[in-house]
Amino acid sequence: MTVEDIQKAKAAIPFNREQLESVLRGRFFYGPSFDLYGGVAGLYDYGPPGCAFQANIVDIWRKHFILEEDMLEVDCTMLTPHDVLKTSGHVDKFSDWMCKDKKTGEIFRADHLVEEVLEARLKGDKEARGVVSEEVEESDDKKRRKKKVKQIKAVKLEDAVAKEYEEVLAKIDGYSGTELGDLMEKYKIGNPVTGDELEPPKAFNLMFETAIGPSGAMRGFLRPETAQGQFLNFNKLLEFNNGKTPFASASIGKSFRNEISPRAGLLRVREFLMAEIEHFLDPLDKSHPKFEEVKHIKLSFLPREVQEAGSTEPVVKTIGEAVESKMVDNETLGYFISRIYQFLTTIGVDETKLRFRQHMGNEMAHYATDCWDAELKTSYGWIECVGCADRSAYDLTVHANKTKEKLVVRQKLETPVEVTQWEIDLTKKLFGPKFRKDAPKVEAFLLNLSQEELEKNAALLKSDGKLTFTVPEVESEVELDDKFITIEKRTKVEHVREYIPNVIEPSFGIGRIIYAVFEHSYWSRPEDTARSVLSFPPLVAPTKVLLVPLSNHKDLAPVTAKISKVLRKEKIPFKVDDSGVSIGKRYSRNDELGTPFGVTIDFESVKDGSVTLRERDSTKQVRGSAEDIIKAIREITYNGVTWEEGTKNLEPFVTNIDSE
Amino acid sequence: MTVEDIQKAKAAIPFNREQLESVLRGRFFYGPSFDLYGGVAGLYDYGPPGCAFQANIVDIWRKHFILEEDMLEVDCTMLTPHDVLKTSGHVDKFSDWMCKDKKTGEIFRADHLVEEVLEARLKGDKEARGVVSEEVEESDDKKRRKKKVKQIKAVKLEDAVAKEYEEVLAKIDGYSGTELGDLMEKYKIGNPVTGDELEPPKAFNLMFETAIGPSGAMRGFLRPETAQGQFLNFNKLLEFNNGKTPFASASIGKSFRNEISPRAGLLRVREFLMAEIEHFLDPLDKSHPKFEEVKHIKLSFLPREVQEAGSTEPVVKTIGEAVESKMVDNETLGYFISRIYQFLTTIGVDETKLRFRQHMGNEMAHYATDCWDAELKTSYGWIECVGCADRSAYDLTVHANKTKEKLVVRQKLETPVEVTQWEIDLTKKLFGPKFRKDAPKVEAFLLNLSQEELEKNAALLKSDGKLTFTVPEVESEVELDDKFITIEKRTKVEHVREYIPNVIEPSFGIGRIIYAVFEHSYWSRPEDTARSVLSFPPLVAPTKVLLVPLSNHKDLAPVTAKISKVLRKEKIPFKVDDSGVSIGKRYSRNDELGTPFGVTIDFESVKDGSVTLRERDSTKQVRGSAEDIIKAIREITYNGVTWEEGTKNLEPFVTNIDSE
Repeated sequence: MTVEDIQKAKAAIPFNREQLESVLRGRFFYGPSFDLYGGVAGLYDYGPPGCAFQANIVDIWRKHFILEEDMLEVDCTMLTPHDVLKTSGHVDKFSDWMCKDKKTGEIFRADHLVEEVLEARLKGDKEARGVVSEEVEESDDKKRRKKKVKQIKAVKLEDAVAKEYEEVLAKIDGYSGTELGDLMEKYKIGNPVTGDELEPPKAFNLMFETAIGPSGAMRGFLRPETAQGQFLNFNKLLEFNNGKTPFASASIGKSFRNEISPRAGLLRVREFLMAEIEHFLDPLDKSHPKFEEVKHIKLSFLPREVQEAGSTEPVVKTIGEAVESKMVDNETLGYFISRIYQFLTTIGVDETKLRFRQHMGNEMAHYATDCWDAELKTSYGWIECVGCADRSAYDLTVHANKTKEKLVVRQKLETPVEVTQWEIDLTKKLFGPKFRKDAPKVEAFLLNLSQEELEKNAALLKSDGKLTFTVPEVESEVELDDKFITIEKRTKVEHVREYIPNVIEPSFGIGRIIYAVFEHSYWSRPEDTARSVLSFPPLVAPTKVLLVPLSNHKDLAPVTAKISKVLRKEKIPFKVDDSGVSIGKRYSRNDELGTPFGVTIDFESVKDGSVTLRERDSTKQVRGSAEDIIKAIREITYNGVTWEEGTKNLEPFVTNIDSE
Repeated sequence: MTVEDIQKAKAAIPFNREQLESVLRGRFFYGPSFDLYGGVAGLYDYGPPGCAFQANIVDIWRKHFILEEDMLEVDCTMLTPHDVLKTSGHVDKFSDWMCKDKKTGEIFRADHLVEEVLEARLKGDKEARGVVSEEVEESDDKKRRKKKVKQIKAVKLEDAVAKEYEEVLAKIDGYSGTELGDLMEKYKIGNPVTGDELEPPKAFNLMFETAIGPSGAMRGFLRPETAQGQFLNFNKLLEFNNGKTPFASASIGKSFRNEISPRAGLLRVREFLMAEIEHFLDPLDKSHPKFEEVKHIKLSFLPREVQEAGSTEPVVKTIGEAVESKMVDNETLGYFISRIYQFLTTIGVDETKLRFRQHMGNEMAHYATDCWDAELKTSYGWIECVGCADRSAYDLTVHANKTKEKLVVRQKLETPVEVTQWEIDLTKKLFGPKFRKDAPKVEAFLLNLSQEELEKNAALLKSDGKLTFTVPEVESEVELDDKFITIEKRTKVEHVREYIPNVIEPSFGIGRIIYAVFEHSYWSRPEDTARSVLSFPPLVAPTKVLLVPLSNHKDLAPVTAKISKVLRKEKIPFKVDDSGVSIGKRYSRNDELGTPFGVTIDFESVKDGSVTLRERDSTKQVRGSAEDIIKAIREITYNGVTWEEGTKNLEPFVTNIDSE
C-alpha cells in the first residue's frame, strides 16, 4: 500500500462514520463519561490511546509554537470571578437562545429549531411539487446536529411563503431572541414532535456558574476560554520579557461551555481542551521577522467576497500573495495562518480537507480587524477547528478601563518627538464638595474625552464660560465653569511612546482537531473492509511499536524482554501482545490502534537476534538485527525519515503474515 | 561550590521565606490570579518559569510511572454529576465545619478556631505563671495558617481548666460539628478579634457546585479528586488490558476544593494539579513482580506506633525490611512507596526532608487497609504531598452496588475448584403479587444475605416453615414461607473465579511538591546573601541554558544566532540575554531562575568558535568549541552525567565573571 493506494482505498470504500466510531470506542480512544450512571450529554473521557494521542498532539503543539517561537507559557485558573467575565463581555453576550416546552419541559435551541422546521417544510413543499430535491451540501453546523424534526410531510406551500422561508434561512445566524420568538409565532413553530406551543426564547448563558468561598457571595464561572488569564497577566509578562514587544503568551488547558443540547460526539462538548496564543504587537507595525520563511506556502482560502457571492470555491494562493493583496490583513496574521497549516499537516490533517475561511462582517466582533478560521472537512461538514483573529486592542483596553490599571507598552523613542494635543486639567479640590459621591465618575468622564471633544469644548468654554455634560450614571446634568476645568492645546517633547498593544489570537480546539485527524486517518483494507486502519503519522501515534512474539513458547520470552528493555530505555512507547491469537489478528487489532510498527519475534530471533519489522499502512516487512530495527523505528518516528530511507540497509522480508 | 558547600551555605544562612517568595513572584514563577481585580484567595497562576517547571515535573512523572510501568492513562472530565459523588461519599462527607459571625458575616473554620484560641490561652497562662514556653514544634497544619488570634493575653488559668484544654487539643481532629459547637459554648469562644458570639458550626461541603445543562435540574460538581473517573472506567480499562490484572490506570489533571479560608500560598489552594494512580490487584495476592528491584532502598518511616508513643523520631530501614516485618502492609504498597521516593528525589526533593508517615487509625477511612503519606519538610512544617493508600475494594464495590453493574475480574481457574456454599432461590412470580412496588427491594435484600445469615435462616425456615425480615425502606415486616424461598447448601465446580479487585492508590499533589522543591532548592551565596540561587536538577529546570553575548557588539550576534539555532533544533530550552547589564548581573538574575548552564560568547568566539560554559551552583567555568559545550549540556541534563564527567575534555577557564 503506497500513499496513493491508501487514497484510492479511501475513495473506493465510502467513509462509514458508525464503523469509525465503533473502532474508536471499542479500542477506548474515548467513551462517554459516567456511562455507568447513564452518562451526561457532552462529556467524554479519553481512554489510554486517546490520552496518549492527545498528549502527543499537545507536545508537538508546545514544541511547534511555544519552544520554536519562544512564547511565554502561563497556566491560569479555570475558576474565574464574575467581574472579569463581565468586563470581557461574556456575562452579557456569551449565550444562546432557548425555548422551553411548557408541558414537557423539553428545551430547544431557538435558532436551530426555526432553521430545521423551515427546512423540513421546504423539503416537504418540494416533495409535494414532485421536485427531486438535489442533495445540497449542508452547512457544517447543520450536519452536525441530530435532527429534532423526525418526519418530512409532503405539504405544498404558497410560493410567497416558500420565498419568505428561504430569506429567513439565509439570515438565520443574525436574529435576536425577540426576532426568533416573532418568527416562531408567525410561522407557528412549536415542539416538532408534539406540536405543543413553546415559551418565547430566553437568553441562556453558556458559562457554568459556581460560588467561590464559604459565604456564597462571590459569583464565579468556569472559564469559557483561556484568553482572559493571559490578558490579565499582561503586565507581568511584559516585565518578564524585559519590557520588549512583540511577544506572545500561550496557554493549554480545559475550558467549559454549557451547551443547550450537545450532540455530534467530540465536536460539541461541554468540557474541552484548548490551546491559545495571544501575540502582543505594536498596532503601527504588524510585520513579522520570520514571514519570509513561510511566504511561499500555498493555502486554500475562502475569503469574504467569495462567500458573499454564494460560492464555496476556494482561492488557492501563497500566503505571501494573500498578504500582499491585503486579502489577509497583515504579515503577523499571515505568519500564524501558515504556522497553523504546518502544525495541522504535521499531526495528520489531510491538506485537501483544510481551508481557511474568513469571517464575514456580521460574524466578526466589532473590534476585530480580521479573522480566519482553519476549517477541517469531516463527515459532519466543514468544522471550525482553529480561529486566528486580530482582536486589535480590545481586551487590554476594557480590562484597563475597568480596573484603572495601565496595560501599556512604553517604548523609548530614539529621537524624541514633539506632540501637540488638547489637554484638560481638573481643579480636583472643587470636585469633591460639588459632586460628592459622583465626583470620581465626573472626573473619569472628563479625562476620557477625545481630542475632537476637547477641541469643541475648549471653544464652548471660551465663548460661554461654562460647559454642561450628561455623565453616565450621574443623575442631574453636570455644569462646570472655568474654575473647574482648563482646556488647552499644548506642545510637549516626548521621550517615550506609550501604547496599548494589539493582539493576534490563534485559538485551537484540540478535541475537534483530534476528531478530524481520526476521520482523515481512517480507511479500510480493500481486500477486507472489516479491517480498519488508522494511519496516524508515527510521531502522533499513541503507541509506536507492537512487539509480537510468534507464540507463547518460553524460548521467545527473553528476546521480548530484552527488546522491551531497550525500547523502555529509549522512551519509545510500545506494547507487547503475547496473547494466543494469530499474528495476523494481533496486527489487525493494532492497525485499529494506529500503531505504525510491528516487530515479530520468532525462533530465528532466538538464534541470531534478528527480528521482522512490519509497516502498518503498506504491510511491508524487513528483517534485521533488533538494534538496526530499533534505529529505523527511531529515525522514522522522531526524525522525519521516510520508510524507504530508514530501512534501506535492512533485508526485505516476504511472507503474508497479515493473513495468518 | 560543591554540594557540601551548598549544604553549609544553607545551614549558615537561615532560610528566609519572604526572600524566596519575592524571588518566585519577581521572576513570575507564579502570582495571584486576577490580581488586577483584587485577586481571589486560593487561586494562583503559573508564569513562564513555573509553567515550564510544572510541565517538566509532569513529563518526568509520566515517564517514571506511566511509561515505565505500562499504566493506562485516562483523561476524565472535571464536571461530575451529583450521583457519582453521592455514591463515593463526597456529597455527605467532604466537608469542614464553619461558624459565622452574626454581626460581621466573617466565617471561621471551627476546628482551627477552637485550636487556636485554646492554644493562645494556654500560652497566656504560661506567661502569667512566668514559665518560659519552649518553642514546641508545631504541627504542619498549624504553622501553615495565618493566625486569627492576634494577641496573647497573660491570664492565669485554673490548673484543671488548663488540663482540660490540653486534652481537647490532643483530640481536636476528631470532633463532630456539634461537639465543636459545645466546646465553643463551654469555653466561650467567639470571634477572636471582636469577642462577638458565633453561630453554631455548620457543615460546609468543599466541592464547587454547578448545574449541567439548560434546565438547571442536573446538579454537578467540580471533581475533588481524579480517582472517580478511573473507577468508573474500570470495565473498559480491564477489557483494554485483555481482562488481565494487575494493572494500573493513571490520570493527571486539575481538581478543586472550595477551602473555607485558603492561606499559605501554593500549599492550600482551591484549584490544583493532581496525578493519581489506581493500581487494581487481586486481594489474595498483593505481591509485586518488581519488588526485588527496590527492596534495598532505605527510607525514613514514621509508623503508627511511634506516633502513638508521642515521638517524631523516624525509623530508618529498607522497604524490604518494612514489608517483611508487616510494618508496611504488602509488597505492592511498598513498591509504590519506593517508586514515590525515587520520583521525588529525582525532581529535586532533599531526601533529608522526606519521610513516610503512616496514617493513624482515626485518620484512615474505615475501609482502608494501610496508608502512608510522603511528607516533605518546609518552613510551614511537614506537609503531606503524596498519599499512598490501600483502599481495598471499597470504591468499585459502592459504584457496583449503586449502578447494579458488575465491576469484577473473571479469572479462569487452571484447576476448577469445588465450592460448597449456601444459596437462596426465590420463586420470583410470587413476589410481584405479594409485595407490589416493594418487590425489587425485598428481592435485593434476600439476595444480599451473607453465608452466616443464610445458614441461620435455613435452620429457621426448616423449623418454623416461614421467615420474617425487616427490610430497609419497606414499611411492614416481610413474612415468607417455603413457597417463596428455598435455602440450600450446594456444592458446585467453578471454572472461573470472580472477584472485585483491591486498589492501591498513590496520589500526588503536584503544586505542593513544586513548592517543596522550591524551598529545598533555595539558598543564598555566602559572599552576598542578596544573591539567591534555585539549585534545580538540570532535568527539571525551566530553562537549561542562558546564552550571554559579552556585549551588544554586532560581531557577536551571528555566533549567538548560530548557537541558538543548534539549541532550538536539539529542543534544549534556552534563553538569550543580550541586555546591556554586566555579565555578573545577568548570571545572578538567571541563578534566581534556576538555569543550570550559562554560555558566554565573546570576541574569541568570533575568531575560533570557542565559548565558555558556566555551572550555576559552583560558578565553575570551562571552555571549548560550541559543539562540545552543547554536547556536555545535553549529557548532563538529559543523561544524568555529572559535571566532572561531562566536562572532563574541556579546558578549565578561570575568571571571576560572577563579580563583574
